[in-house]
Amino acid sequence: MKIRVGFGFDVHQLVEGCALWLGGIRLEHAKGLLGHSDADVLVHSICDALLGAANMRDIGYHFPDTAGEYKNIDSKILLKRTVELIAEKGYRIGNIDATICAERPKLKPHIPLMQETLAAVMAIDIDDISIKATTTEKLGFTGREEGISAYVTVLIEKE
Amino acid sequence: MKIRVGFGFDVHQLVEGCALWLGGIRLEHAKGLLGHSDADVLVHSICDALLGAANMRDIGYHFPDTAGEYKNIDSKILLKRTVELIAEKGYRIGNIDATICAERPKLKPHIPLMQETLAAVMAIDIDDISIKATTTEKLGFTGREEGISAYVTVLIEKE
Amino acid sequence: MKIRVGFGFDVHQLVEGCALWLGGIRLEHAKGLLGHSDADVLVHSICDALLGAANMRDIGYHFPDTAGEYKNIDSKILLKRTVELIAEKGYRIGNIDATICAERPKLKPHIPLMQETLAAVMAIDIDDISIKATTTEKLGFTGREEGISAYVTVLIEKE
Ligand SMILES: [Zn+2]
Ligand SMILES: [Zn+2]
Ligand SMILES: [Zn+2]
Repeated sequence: MKIRVGFGFDVHQLVEGCALWLGGIRLEHAKGLLGHSDADVLVHSICDALLGAANMRDIGYHFPDTAGEYKNIDSKILLKRTVELIAEKGYRIGNIDATICAERPKLKPHIPLMQETLAAVMAIDIDDISIKATTTEKLGFTGREEGISAYVTVLIEKE
Repeated sequence: MKIRVGFGFDVHQLVEGCALWLGGIRLEHAKGLLGHSDADVLVHSICDALLGAANMRDIGYHFPDTAGEYKNIDSKILLKRTVELIAEKGYRIGNIDATICAERPKLKPHIPLMQETLAAVMAIDIDDISIKATTTEKLGFTGREEGISAYVTVLIEKE
Repeated sequence: MKIRVGFGFDVHQLVEGCALWLGGIRLEHAKGLLGHSDADVLVHSICDALLGAANMRDIGYHFPDTAGEYKNIDSKILLKRTVELIAEKGYRIGNIDATICAERPKLKPHIPLMQETLAAVMAIDIDDISIKATTTEKLGFTGREEGISAYVTVLIEKE
């Protein structure tokens, strides 16, 4: 079996007047993430990590933010397509480990639903998608609540 | 053998009047890291990477910073418990690679003692724990010496 | 076969009056990266990820920026030496996945040449070196175009 590693990193601005979609679910918060799609920074990082592991370029290459068809799109649709893309090259997901950096809102109570939601989209076992949350202790743009970032590492495998 | 990947990221503020604990050892420096525990940002990132690889939530879930029992605790105790937690799920450490981002102090001379110290805590071979140090070239909060961050990637395995 | 993971992160300042070397090639841009060597932040991150995976310290340890012999050096030479260093310990590259964070210039059209160039330096298949590009949505030092950063994850293997 061939095993490969991938890594994704994404950032979106937190602004007033946007819904907050994160990890495939909608959270109640005074601000939301700004982007061409629904700006789900965690889902975008997972897509990038999977594409990188398979050496299939990146999310901006496959789903350009200049394309009208991706305007306001639910990022779970992009994730589903990403899993199909890597499957075409013979890869399936080994495991995913994600870290969200956000000063607020508190993400801890929402992690299990994010895991359940994304596992269903990718058709993987819930034990193969880990999601962690941390703050940057008020430092940097995530600490100032100007944005949220997500780091994701993945293993993919092929027989 | 089943192999899984994990990733941890942590940040703590550098402030005057705190001791600087990093990589399980105490360093001489004009500032130290601020936190509920001893704020050892490298050890926390290792814990998060191990927990993430095993899909066992994160350090804030197991050792909440609102719990009195973790006040000023030596983070090496949390690391030891983390290794026990993943062992309960059948996992052992494959290898760990860590990167500390700090403008100062110079970490290069202290790396071997950090490796030795943490290898002993985790009961692994010293060749299985790599620690690297870098600066962010005076950019961002680490560059301004407002904080120190650490990135950690790990492989864990199960028969 | 023994498999190990590594992670590299590097940052350099973007300043006027420097050439922009990135991913082993020279890009046309109003600013370039500042450093002791050619400051190729992507190549440095790859070196660090490979050295970390093999537990052979970091780029600053092997190629110190205080050594005259590395002044203005083409970082591809450092990368070639890094691949030789890990080979001496019995390791060869499994796969590499890199992410460059830069607000500008647009990197998408240059990725294939970077891949081709670095695959040749490391003597690996082009399918084993993935390079992705993203912005930080105008946030932080990369968003303000004060610097460029790169994250790299690798797998290395040994019989
Ligand atoms: Zn995005
Ligand atoms: Zn911490
Ligand atoms: Zn560098």
